Amino acid sequence: MREAFYGTRRFEDFLSHIDVSTGVLAARLRELVEEGILEKRPYQEPGARVRDEYHLTDKGRSMLPVLVALIDWADRWLGEPAGPTVILRHRDCGAPVTAAVVCAEGHRVAGPRDVLATPGPGAQPTPGRPD
Amino acid sequence: MREAFYGTRRFEDFLSHIDVSTGVLAARLRELVEEGILEKRPYQEPGARVRDEYHLTDKGRSMLPVLVALIDWADRWLGEPAGPTVILRHRDCGAPVTAAVVCAEGHRVAGPRDVLATPGPGAQPTPGRPD
Repeated sequence: MREAFYGTRRFEDFLSHIDVSTGVLAARLRELVEEGILEKRPYQEPGARVRDEYHLTDKGRSMLPVLVALIDWADRWLGEPAGPTVILRHRDCGAPVTAAVVCAEGHRVAGPRDVLATPGPGAQPTPGRPD
Repeated sequence: MREAFYGTRRFEDFLSHIDVSTGVLAARLRELVEEGILEKRPYQEPGARVRDEYHLTDKGRSMLPVLVALIDWADRWLGEPAGPTVILRHRDCGAPVTAAVVCAEGHRVAGPRDVLATPGPGAQPTPGRPD
């Protein structure tokens, strides 16, 4: 997934960027296609047979905050002493990119204590709990 | 993990909120403690033996953006027609909370095309790729 976000599209490019076997890679790509996160699009190099590229769908693209949040967390807690191998930057201004929790009023949410979980429209009454 | 963020601390409360067996729950909590995401703290109800509560560590608390991003994504793509069962709100103002990708200059990053992956200080030269 991370590679797809970095713009990798072709099987052999995924293979050269990630340390997995062709079988494992094929299975992962198949799963991501089945989940609707990647979609296959045919391409053809001159003189070669038609192959598939893997493109992010809208469903896949909308996982960007999840991916950035995971990278932030891993850099902080599992990072190498030398520092992160990859820094994500805003294409327009070059500043580093992070995942932030914000509210609809534009406030930055610092931690779990600032968040309240409230029942949504799909909430079911808890079974066995008196009203 | 989600339950821990919602403030659940005790084994029997996790058990009543999540649809898992005691064995699976015990294994999951043990893993999260081993990973340093939860920590055990003893408590004692009057007349009962000492038991452990499970509290988020700093490492665990800093997964908030990951959790919120996953909830946002699941609500959008896997949601029930009735709407989300839980809405996360900012404790101070009550507005719904989401995970956003932002840059250090304060710009909102809309999608993967606005993000550039650049080598960080820990980057290794790609083996076999000429300089």
